[in-house]
Amino acid sequence: MLTYSMEDRGSLPLYEYLYRCIRRDILSGALAAGERLPSKRTLAEHLRLSVITVEGAYAQLEAEGYVYAKPKQGFFVCPVQQTPEPPRPAAIPTEKPAPVWKVDLRSNQADGSRFPAATWARLTRQVLSEGSFLTSVPHQGLYALRQAIADDLHAFKGMSVSPEQIVIGAGAEYLYMLLAQLLGPKTVVAVEDPGYPKIRQVYGKCGAVCRPIPLDRQGMDPAVLAASGATAAHLSPNHHYPTGTITTIGRRQALLQWAEEREATIIEDDYDSEFRFAGRPIPALQSIDTHGRVVYMNTFSQTISPSMRMGFMVLPPQLLERYRRELGFYACTVPVLEQHVLARFLSGGYYEQHLSRMRKEYRARRDAVLAAFQASPFAGRVTFSEQGAGLHFLLRLDTSLDDETLRQKAEGLGVRLAFLSEYAAVPREEHAHTLVVNYGGLEPERLADTTALLTEVFSE
Amino acid sequence: MLTYSMEDRGSLPLYEYLYRCIRRDILSGALAAGERLPSKRTLAEHLRLSVITVEGAYAQLEAEGYVYAKPKQGFFVCPVQQTPEPPRPAAIPTEKPAPVWKVDLRSNQADGSRFPAATWARLTRQVLSEGSFLTSVPHQGLYALRQAIADDLHAFKGMSVSPEQIVIGAGAEYLYMLLAQLLGPKTVVAVEDPGYPKIRQVYGKCGAVCRPIPLDRQGMDPAVLAASGATAAHLSPNHHYPTGTITTIGRRQALLQWAEEREATIIEDDYDSEFRFAGRPIPALQSIDTHGRVVYMNTFSQTISPSMRMGFMVLPPQLLERYRRELGFYACTVPVLEQHVLARFLSGGYYEQHLSRMRKEYRARRDAVLAAFQASPFAGRVTFSEQGAGLHFLLRLDTSLDDETLRQKAEGLGVRLAFLSEYAAVPREEHAHTLVVNYGGLEPERLADTTALLTEVFSE
Repeated sequence: MLTYSMEDRGSLPLYEYLYRCIRRDILSGALAAGERLPSKRTLAEHLRLSVITVEGAYAQLEAEGYVYAKPKQGFFVCPVQQTPEPPRPAAIPTEKPAPVWKVDLRSNQADGSRFPAATWARLTRQVLSEGSFLTSVPHQGLYALRQAIADDLHAFKGMSVSPEQIVIGAGAEYLYMLLAQLLGPKTVVAVEDPGYPKIRQVYGKCGAVCRPIPLDRQGMDPAVLAASGATAAHLSPNHHYPTGTITTIGRRQALLQWAEEREATIIEDDYDSEFRFAGRPIPALQSIDTHGRVVYMNTFSQTISPSMRMGFMVLPPQLLERYRRELGFYACTVPVLEQHVLARFLSGGYYEQHLSRMRKEYRARRDAVLAAFQASPFAGRVTFSEQGAGLHFLLRLDTSLDDETLRQKAEGLGVRLAFLSEYAAVPREEHAHTLVVNYGGLEPERLADTTALLTEVFSE
Repeated sequence: MLTYSMEDRGSLPLYEYLYRCIRRDILSGALAAGERLPSKRTLAEHLRLSVITVEGAYAQLEAEGYVYAKPKQGFFVCPVQQTPEPPRPAAIPTEKPAPVWKVDLRSNQADGSRFPAATWARLTRQVLSEGSFLTSVPHQGLYALRQAIADDLHAFKGMSVSPEQIVIGAGAEYLYMLLAQLLGPKTVVAVEDPGYPKIRQVYGKCGAVCRPIPLDRQGMDPAVLAASGATAAHLSPNHHYPTGTITTIGRRQALLQWAEEREATIIEDDYDSEFRFAGRPIPALQSIDTHGRVVYMNTFSQTISPSMRMGFMVLPPQLLERYRRELGFYACTVPVLEQHVLARFLSGGYYEQHLSRMRKEYRARRDAVLAAFQASPFAGRVTFSEQGAGLHFLLRLDTSLDDETLRQKAEGLGVRLAFLSEYAAVPREEHAHTLVVNYGGLEPERLADTTALLTEVFSE
């Protein structure tokens, strides 16, 4: 007869403790396969338990397949493997803490401290009080948010799009995944070289084949693109990161012609285009696309906060139909609360106010950085370029040191640098000795220190 | 000389209006390629504008590649294609509004009205007031949330996992995508048949090959699995949707042995396992995995709200290393605000309180639905099964009508039904005439109407 000391059960319910005791005996082999368990009544009397307690334990054992019932005969032990040793906890690789830098010129994130957090919090409280944050939204995203995005694109980028064309997603990387799935497996995607490495990484992980196309001063060369065999091209025609290149109107027209003739897709990634310091915003390629070949995409991670993954894409009619047919089953990945708040942040004008303030702020910051560098001991050995937009500029250094040596030297001094060569898929000599100086997080009060540290890094 | 009526500019700045006029003339061919623009001073005098205004317009035209500068000679028109006609807006397929049903037995969503929205809103306000919702988080997700999830898994599922093993993501579908990328292209994934069709859809879209394996009453047959050539298996051993099958301990051991021998991966998808009405929760397969072959995953969409896409996976050590090496570049897709709130919702005990309340609620709801059906005119023609857990049970109908006829008849009466056959990858006779009755949203006051409508649907 099964005998267990029910006093040892601690805080467990009686039935659960009994279930655990019998389970242990089955797993250890003390109760062999085919053996019959005592009847509920017998065991209950033996252990001074209620029949209901034994019933509960037997039911759980049966549900998990430790025992099986034969009508009118009772419960029998199932064949299971004996597991003498308890599982040993395996070694878990620990997470590396993010290193702390004295100066970080590599992070291209906007300065979060300038974000109107109070306004955002107020709008969030508003949505919370209305209780609509638990309702479900269409798979393409909250309609009010898509309307607000369409309005913003119309007012500030000269684009005429319908909310129906917009798909909301949890950041650029997620949208790249959807696009890779939409284009289909093995699609050859032309990407800009140099370019943001994550674009190549995500497409590669999603089964697309990336063909890096070298950029010249006008953008991607349509002849090289045509020869590449690509049927899709991922471009940043309005402000390329990190070279700052703006694709000229002649090139835009030629790229669109390529897409029409090849029935190819152009993905216009408008990352980092908001902070243009002189003149008006560059009109989107999408706005001159008469044949529905351009997908426009952008994210709010850069302009609002990287802590909120929110982006969107605008699909041309034919691709929209394919999206709904093939990928329409995907639920929207952005929480409804954030979608409501962003819709109000956009339609209330707070977003463009914020951008306008930040453009001034970053322009001042950029001017201060350039002035400090031009007054530094290394001024005679550097040339600047691409400083018209974005939160970075290029700094070409006259040096005999290679990029890797410079990088290590900098890290030894607590300085994190980014090099143009890191963005290249195919290394070329013209990329060497060129720093991508991301000054978005470089507050004025840290400029003197930064210049002094860079002087040491650049010394030979 | 270029002559434009500056009075027609509306609210545009002068420089922008001038830029638009010249751009229009270049695109129409009125200004031909190679033509020289008047000097800034000459045009300024001619149009009674300041030189700075003309400079602004020329700079914008140059930035966009409409004109180019020759040193000391001025600006010249670039070759561009003439675009006589303005782009016609293409027809956008409209979104179909979600149909409104009198009775919806297909939606497997929990009843959102019972969610403690006030508590959630209070915790959200708390996080907002602390201002930490704009800081960035590690790529695997907020550490405090991963700790809270690890604690919950330990307390309520008997699992020992470290927060380092946990990856937070924007819902189950997104996590399926990451897993497909982690397993690698062309991986053959065994899936349960019948089973949740989205699992097959997502894996398929991510380049994996799905092999449906028929389920028997104990779960997936390891012999059939071994013969399938799969190197991964996606399982719901603790409560399969929609059949309710619990994989027996014998099968669990055999499945683990298969994974060890084949060096295969088992994905334990614990969707819908929280609402078990009798006995204790079924221990996770992950908790008896001594060789690190099991990925455990679950989502809060079902238990909290589908409007918040939040899920997580627990990676065994070897896969965790591979994840960090190959996919560690992906930023976390869940906003930081929701991560903080969920962490507090879990560690404050609100989550398990909510589950415990809902288990009672759903148990009562299920009993009421079963009682009403058993007292209905169709009682003699139906048999119920799998009513021990989840928010659904199976109802097998003795009928001469096929599933499609039943479905259409129901829709005509405003009733939305789900059939077991819809979950089958390979149709089998045993799946026919079986409804998946999702009663989560069926309030008691609507039971009489529902029964009357079903009586009409089931009549022959």
